[in-house]
Amino acid sequence: MSVERIGIGMLGYGFMGRAHAGAYRTLRHLPAPSPLVPSLVSVCGRTRSAVAAAAEEFGFAGSTTDWREVVADARVAVFDNTGPNSLHHAPTIAAARQGKHLICEKPLGLNADESFEMWAAASNAGVQHMCAFNYRFVPAVRLAREMLEAGELGEIYHFRGRYLQDWVLDPDLRRGWRLNRSMAGSGALGDLGAHVIDLARYLVGEPATVAATMAAFVTGRPDAGDLDEAVDDAVEAAVEFESGAIGTIEASRVCAGRKNALTFEISGSKGSIAFDLERLNELQVNLSGSTNPNLEGFRTVLVTQPQHPYLSNWWPPGHVLGWEHTFTHELAHFLNAIARDESVAPHGATFADGYRAAEVCDAIGRSARFGRREAVSYRALTSESVRTGI
Amino acid sequence: MSVERIGIGMLGYGFMGRAHAGAYRTLRHLPAPSPLVPSLVSVCGRTRSAVAAAAEEFGFAGSTTDWREVVADARVAVFDNTGPNSLHHAPTIAAARQGKHLICEKPLGLNADESFEMWAAASNAGVQHMCAFNYRFVPAVRLAREMLEAGELGEIYHFRGRYLQDWVLDPDLRRGWRLNRSMAGSGALGDLGAHVIDLARYLVGEPATVAATMAAFVTGRPDAGDLDEAVDDAVEAAVEFESGAIGTIEASRVCAGRKNALTFEISGSKGSIAFDLERLNELQVNLSGSTNPNLEGFRTVLVTQPQHPYLSNWWPPGHVLGWEHTFTHELAHFLNAIARDESVAPHGATFADGYRAAEVCDAIGRSARFGRREAVSYRALTSESVRTGI
Amino acid sequence: MSVERIGIGMLGYGFMGRAHAGAYRTLRHLPAPSPLVPSLVSVCGRTRSAVAAAAEEFGFAGSTTDWREVVADARVAVFDNTGPNSLHHAPTIAAARQGKHLICEKPLGLNADESFEMWAAASNAGVQHMCAFNYRFVPAVRLAREMLEAGELGEIYHFRGRYLQDWVLDPDLRRGWRLNRSMAGSGALGDLGAHVIDLARYLVGEPATVAATMAAFVTGRPDAGDLDEAVDDAVEAAVEFESGAIGTIEASRVCAGRKNALTFEISGSKGSIAFDLERLNELQVNLSGSTNPNLEGFRTVLVTQPQHPYLSNWWPPGHVLGWEHTFTHELAHFLNAIARDESVAPHGATFADGYRAAEVCDAIGRSARFGRREAVSYRALTSESVRTGI
Amino acid sequence: MSVERIGIGMLGYGFMGRAHAGAYRTLRHLPAPSPLVPSLVSVCGRTRSAVAAAAEEFGFAGSTTDWREVVADARVAVFDNTGPNSLHHAPTIAAARQGKHLICEKPLGLNADESFEMWAAASNAGVQHMCAFNYRFVPAVRLAREMLEAGELGEIYHFRGRYLQDWVLDPDLRRGWRLNRSMAGSGALGDLGAHVIDLARYLVGEPATVAATMAAFVTGRPDAGDLDEAVDDAVEAAVEFESGAIGTIEASRVCAGRKNALTFEISGSKGSIAFDLERLNELQVNLSGSTNPNLEGFRTVLVTQPQHPYLSNWWPPGHVLGWEHTFTHELAHFLNAIARDESVAPHGATFADGYRAAEVCDAIGRSARFGRREAVSYRALTSESVRTGI
Repeated sequence: MSVERIGIGMLGYGFMGRAHAGAYRTLRHLPAPSPLVPSLVSVCGRTRSAVAAAAEEFGFAGSTTDWREVVADARVAVFDNTGPNSLHHAPTIAAARQGKHLICEKPLGLNADESFEMWAAASNAGVQHMCAFNYRFVPAVRLAREMLEAGELGEIYHFRGRYLQDWVLDPDLRRGWRLNRSMAGSGALGDLGAHVIDLARYLVGEPATVAATMAAFVTGRPDAGDLDEAVDDAVEAAVEFESGAIGTIEASRVCAGRKNALTFEISGSKGSIAFDLERLNELQVNLSGSTNPNLEGFRTVLVTQPQHPYLSNWWPPGHVLGWEHTFTHELAHFLNAIARDESVAPHGATFADGYRAAEVCDAIGRSARFGRREAVSYRALTSESVRTGI
Repeated sequence: MSVERIGIGMLGYGFMGRAHAGAYRTLRHLPAPSPLVPSLVSVCGRTRSAVAAAAEEFGFAGSTTDWREVVADARVAVFDNTGPNSLHHAPTIAAARQGKHLICEKPLGLNADESFEMWAAASNAGVQHMCAFNYRFVPAVRLAREMLEAGELGEIYHFRGRYLQDWVLDPDLRRGWRLNRSMAGSGALGDLGAHVIDLARYLVGEPATVAATMAAFVTGRPDAGDLDEAVDDAVEAAVEFESGAIGTIEASRVCAGRKNALTFEISGSKGSIAFDLERLNELQVNLSGSTNPNLEGFRTVLVTQPQHPYLSNWWPPGHVLGWEHTFTHELAHFLNAIARDESVAPHGATFADGYRAAEVCDAIGRSARFGRREAVSYRALTSESVRTGI
Repeated sequence: MSVERIGIGMLGYGFMGRAHAGAYRTLRHLPAPSPLVPSLVSVCGRTRSAVAAAAEEFGFAGSTTDWREVVADARVAVFDNTGPNSLHHAPTIAAARQGKHLICEKPLGLNADESFEMWAAASNAGVQHMCAFNYRFVPAVRLAREMLEAGELGEIYHFRGRYLQDWVLDPDLRRGWRLNRSMAGSGALGDLGAHVIDLARYLVGEPATVAATMAAFVTGRPDAGDLDEAVDDAVEAAVEFESGAIGTIEASRVCAGRKNALTFEISGSKGSIAFDLERLNELQVNLSGSTNPNLEGFRTVLVTQPQHPYLSNWWPPGHVLGWEHTFTHELAHFLNAIARDESVAPHGATFADGYRAAEVCDAIGRSARFGRREAVSYRALTSESVRTGI
Repeated sequence: MSVERIGIGMLGYGFMGRAHAGAYRTLRHLPAPSPLVPSLVSVCGRTRSAVAAAAEEFGFAGSTTDWREVVADARVAVFDNTGPNSLHHAPTIAAARQGKHLICEKPLGLNADESFEMWAAASNAGVQHMCAFNYRFVPAVRLAREMLEAGELGEIYHFRGRYLQDWVLDPDLRRGWRLNRSMAGSGALGDLGAHVIDLARYLVGEPATVAATMAAFVTGRPDAGDLDEAVDDAVEAAVEFESGAIGTIEASRVCAGRKNALTFEISGSKGSIAFDLERLNELQVNLSGSTNPNLEGFRTVLVTQPQHPYLSNWWPPGHVLGWEHTFTHELAHFLNAIARDESVAPHGATFADGYRAAEVCDAIGRSARFGRREAVSYRALTSESVRTGI
């Protein structure tokens, strides 16, 4: 098999930057590797010494403090945006205009409008685009999707999703960009809620309405600056889906003891499934419709068998995978899509998915603010909007 | 210690009737029994032969098909209403007027108005009154309350409660009174949601607003009769508490594989607790604020130690209790309140609590119907309302 | 249906006495009650005032401090021995000779010889006999037995059983009869290990050999008296079954945090099951041989469905049972056996089962003492041994 | 910090070879990398084309079918033996004699004698040596060790360890070297039991005696060849430790539904801990001695906090690690030991540990064969034995 190198330029070298870089290095050595081998060309960040150290540590050939250099770099074919949310829109659109393939961390833009423009720009440029909703690439989540597609749960009545963390409880926490509204757009909603929304859409379909409330509990950070900039700590929403299913979307960063608890439970006429990211190798499955009724129960499927999604590249049964390989699977999927000139959909999230998640986030925000159930409406990408990007 | 007998008259001999009767028999033989020994005088139901058989099986001295006979029976000091929801209001008020002490199954009335009138009547009569929210009497729930009162979780940010069952999924299910709106008032909301609401109030305080959606999925019962009579199968609500905490209240009777899953999770600035009725002897506890941070985690407290609430009457550690003893504890508490001439509050639910839960239910119903966040407002019992009962 | 009263005389009014008495009272009110209604005639204990109070609390008509009175009482048809182990042998044999039906707590005698004599005496007298291995009457355990009988696990390779508690860790614990060798015979072995052995026999068949070690860790009790009287705190045994399966039998009373953890796991060529008494309403089931391999996993069967063993007498699904009803089921089974003139076997343990468990205990004791694998050999009840009782 | 390259030569390119190679690549990019950067020089295997493909996939510069070439290769400073057990002894000793640092998969040799000779050879050569008991490098296991060293569990009474898998149940399984006695030495005992033994020694100390039984259940493999070559499918042992603690060591490859269930539970006078490799990010902790007794329980510590062992190199809390990083931690530890010229002990297993584990395995084998409790005796490395290697 001939392999070809593809140059990667990255914006951001924090938590997500480290995760993406590790995945690029790892996917080169899978038993069934991508036909495109990532070459880590350049990484960009604000602080010269820190980004240079990151380049060394992550394995990039070079670094820069100006993202325009990455966008203009002819060696770069993929622009991977892992920067703060406020740096998603402009650099990604600029990269699109340079014909770079695009991967951007979630939430796609600071709001639905920014996200729509990013989608339009990517479409206009005719490049590949993926919004890095990495939890679609948890093997147990993909297995859930396959069960749902096969109708194993019957008609779906409920989706209940939560993403709970507790790091904002720390009163001495320094206020990074994730706690700053102008840089993050929102708090728990866009950071955590967006993941729940994307999984809801991936697994159950489009939300139709949301009825929500939000709260900011923890104030007075050491470096809090302008109080108006405080973001939401938690969001609670009742949701109706276009299919008729109902449920909840919840997110909190002040939930003591929950470290990374992205959980969902989906129930239908024939069964239910449940998932918890803190035990990401497991899927809880109840098939009430096709089981000896004496022996019905939620079973813990250890999603590590060779025939499970994404597992053929890994270890014998029971040798569990870590969180980081959501990115290995995701970026391998992205490079395969480029190599085959196919969309990353449906198993990867496109910028269209990123935009739609943003519409749901915005509707939740409006519902919380105005105290009414909000319908979610999605704009279509017309030829006009592709052209103008708005 | 001198013991005195107290006559019990019961309306209803179904699921709840059996549970109450068993509790009356059991509580006579606790190591620390009530000073009032229940004497099972009479049970009332629609079908003569069936109620006579129930009287025999449950240990009642007699039976009748006319609840007015029970209400008028001089031997009866406690009127225990375990009948369908539509038979809560009139018989209970009639019994109040006869000076009977009152225990009534939840939901108290078919709606907030009925419930208020029942509360007013009980108050006017000066009798003891308890709404049978039995889950307050789960030892783990009482332990949760004690932790919250002691401030062990700090300032409370979240209450998330669900009550999920799946029996309505059965397409051949006969439509008993619980599926009939005129007899039940509502479906999952009043049957299951009311329990969640009562625990929210018992543990976290008064709900201030609700934003809800409801759905009826399963239609076309064999004996469905008038379609307008269908009740809700599920309800989802985002909730704000007067304290500022936010969360969810959910209920469903179409949640495959969940048999009796009343769960809640409460999170505060110093810790979290979680409960699941299917494992009613356990309380999950995370004390992030006072634990070696290396060893923080949710611990499974087996609430069967002698010093745990209600446990001094039972077995050595680890010998688990069954669901039925929620009633044993509840009815013993009620008889003790009568003996001591004290209110059942705060650990028992009074008719005031039953009324307030009904206000929350009604607000959820309005929110779901009108698509807006609803404030919950509670009427006070004025001397006028006590007198007139409205 | 005509019902008949049957007089119960009991030796002992401690933990087990309370449990048995409650069960007798409860089983009268089951939907499908026994044709024999227990009448609590007399209870016997050492201390006059205490046993009189127990009679009052438990609902016995009378009490005595001389077990011979109970044995001689013409109103007593069933002699229920819940006394210390050292009082099992003589009173039970005396009762057999008076033609009383016999139920005796485990372990049956202080050793295999005493147990054999008790079995012989019961057989000679032609009365019903049951050794109160109550955990056979956990619904999940009976379900396990039915799965094994039906071959759902295939050929059995493993039985692993443990019974772990921690109450002996308490340094201030007073030394009751369970910690006294002359009254208890052994410590963790006979108290807890005997239960594991009985379940092994009930579920998997006869142990053939044992290779064991035992230890006594906690010494110097406040009232320890003669050190020679100390009993074992823990026992560990590797076991081979006659069927070829291998596994472990373990017991400890010094296992911090394990309150009443009787657990077992059974594995065969087609699946595995696992049980934990601290979650007695649940059975873990893995059917690897007949499941979609993508969805294999241990399922948590909540053994509370109406069609589950012993459940028809109880509540709707998910309304869990408590530990005490192991006795309700057991004693109802015993009274039914008397009414039908049938053996309590196979689902109840006879004195033959009590004897065989004692042989395994004794073999474990010899193995631990002499450092060799011990074969378990069982004596048969010949006409001679029935006659002479030895 | 100056970094230096160190050449790695590997024997074997199967499951373990892939795991080691991935770890070498990953550890180069940790935030706190080793001062020695591994350079993958050469990998050796039997089949020329397969080993060449593996070299490409794993990132080795070259490959060979003759391990002597690797041993003689001047570029190679570390000889990493991941081959079949029968190829541990001779190549490793040859590499020692060439002054290579040594890492060898477990079990060290085919038996205690081979293992002793390997230890002696390594000592004689004065090179670094590590037996790849990778589960010492699970963060939760290291945390357990630190708790035990700090005395948090008090005096230790029990160690119970099991390693259960089910892949040998497959009747169509081809018989690889792990099922061949001459290549593997033993079956479940050396493959899985050795891990349990090493963890027992790491956490609780030296086993003093073992009383064991073993069984081979599954016969008649398609390519079974000589029946005498069949290995054990399962082993059960009761164990006494030099400290006085007692417990069990168990291993099985025919335990349906258990995919990779290495579990242990350790109990002491002040608390207990429990671990399950299928949930390797978690440690169950019960501190009965220092907890509010009302709130005692087993807590699930998610061992992913930055201050937990090995975690400073990874992700924010709750972002779980996979099995493969046991090797990343282990090999980074090994390279650090080389760089610092320090032994890998106590947190890494030396060849002395590999030898001692082999003595316990051999004692278990003798106990099972001869039906007696076997004392474990350990040979010391005298200057004579170092010199002669026997």
